[in-house]
Amino acid sequence: MDSNEATRNVRLVMEYDGTDFHGFQIQPGPRTVQGTIESVLQELLSEEIRLTGAGRTDEGVHACGQVANFRTSSDMPTHILKRALNSRLPADIVVKSADEVSPDFHSRFSAKSRVYQYDICVIRSPIRRRYAWHIKYNLNIGEMERASDVFIGSHDFTSFCVAKSTVDESSCVVYSSVWRRKADVLQYEIEANRFLHNMVRVMVGTMVDVGRGRHSMEDIAHILEAKDRRRAGPTAPPHGLFLVAVKY
Amino acid sequence: MDSNEATRNVRLVMEYDGTDFHGFQIQPGPRTVQGTIESVLQELLSEEIRLTGAGRTDEGVHACGQVANFRTSSDMPTHILKRALNSRLPADIVVKSADEVSPDFHSRFSAKSRVYQYDICVIRSPIRRRYAWHIKYNLNIGEMERASDVFIGSHDFTSFCVAKSTVDESSCVVYSSVWRRKADVLQYEIEANRFLHNMVRVMVGTMVDVGRGRHSMEDIAHILEAKDRRRAGPTAPPHGLFLVAVKY
Repeated sequence: MDSNEATRNVRLVMEYDGTDFHGFQIQPGPRTVQGTIESVLQELLSEEIRLTGAGRTDEGVHACGQVANFRTSSDMPTHILKRALNSRLPADIVVKSADEVSPDFHSRFSAKSRVYQYDICVIRSPIRRRYAWHIKYNLNIGEMERASDVFIGSHDFTSFCVAKSTVDESSCVVYSSVWRRKADVLQYEIEANRFLHNMVRVMVGTMVDVGRGRHSMEDIAHILEAKDRRRAGPTAPPHGLFLVAVKY
Repeated sequence: MDSNEATRNVRLVMEYDGTDFHGFQIQPGPRTVQGTIESVLQELLSEEIRLTGAGRTDEGVHACGQVANFRTSSDMPTHILKRALNSRLPADIVVKSADEVSPDFHSRFSAKSRVYQYDICVIRSPIRRRYAWHIKYNLNIGEMERASDVFIGSHDFTSFCVAKSTVDESSCVVYSSVWRRKADVLQYEIEANRFLHNMVRVMVGTMVDVGRGRHSMEDIAHILEAKDRRRAGPTAPPHGLFLVAVKY
């Protein structure tokens, strides 16, 4: 695609069940969200399409509000495009909205914040088994709530990031960090300007350690200061995690 | 099993994801909930076990509070039995509790009422696709709420029952019948002393017709009086239905 010819910038908001995808980002071979949507778009618009996602959800992670954009020379109205996409996409992806946006909109770089949610079920639930982490141990939810408060504000999250040599900026601003209890489900929600790789899952794994009494609430501050992944708790499994929203 | 030797009566409360079962009731060949649990119990207790369920959920229908009982000559403590069952059952069934009950307890005949829930999503949702009926049409929820009130009380539900020559008693007492709205999900909950075959699904299909403007609220009373299945609306699909609780 010659970008000079591409006159329109289209934003999609998507929900997907991450269970049967090898993550968002396209890769040769395995089934990915990006690859699935790009190939449907290409078939539909008869041109090469490159989809840019706001967040690269990992294998098994779900989204109810993933955002992506792409440039196209097609003049297909967006409400027709949305309907055509949804009639061609598999049952585990849906496009919730399609809108034309300004040429400089970039789903990733224009984002002001992202909201993630992590669900834990305290009783094994067949119905939630693909969408929540089952914890067998008694959890002190009060301690987990207090631990979650420590993350609010601007911190270096190196201790909560899977080590990557390419990480050049480890500081994130957390706007909200809260646990909610809904019957047998504990739901964690976090909003931040940006997230490091696996950050929410390591945070949840560490707060579960607090809930089990393996760490105290005070340890969270020390773990943050240490800037050492080995100090934090285990990485929570992907299937409890949802990218809920991206804000612009 | 000789019933004289069977000295204990055990009650199980179960949750299951009905997606991959051909219903609760055992049948030769296809995978059923009853067949799966009976075979695990037989292996565990080394005796023939006959499980009696409170409600025979159809193919694809889920349960979060199905109740069943069985008689056994084993003296295995119920908390050990529960743990042993759960370690052997597949991921789509869990035993939430196992308790010894009085010899005359019968999960079906002793039940005073049953509670079912039906979930509808008004926006197609990949994450809810196995657990809610997706309705594309605009629904007038106010009309559906008024229609649901008509079912409360004692009525002959022949119009809402899939015709079976063996139905000898078509009267049911509905204790509560209510729609709730939770974000993009419409949730119907009904409690009654008994239910006819497919009754909740035909009721939901008919109320959706009311919500779409195909029937008026007043039509519900006429459909009940007609005692004719052909007068009611379509049968809603099984995957939105949950057996929530059985009360004794």
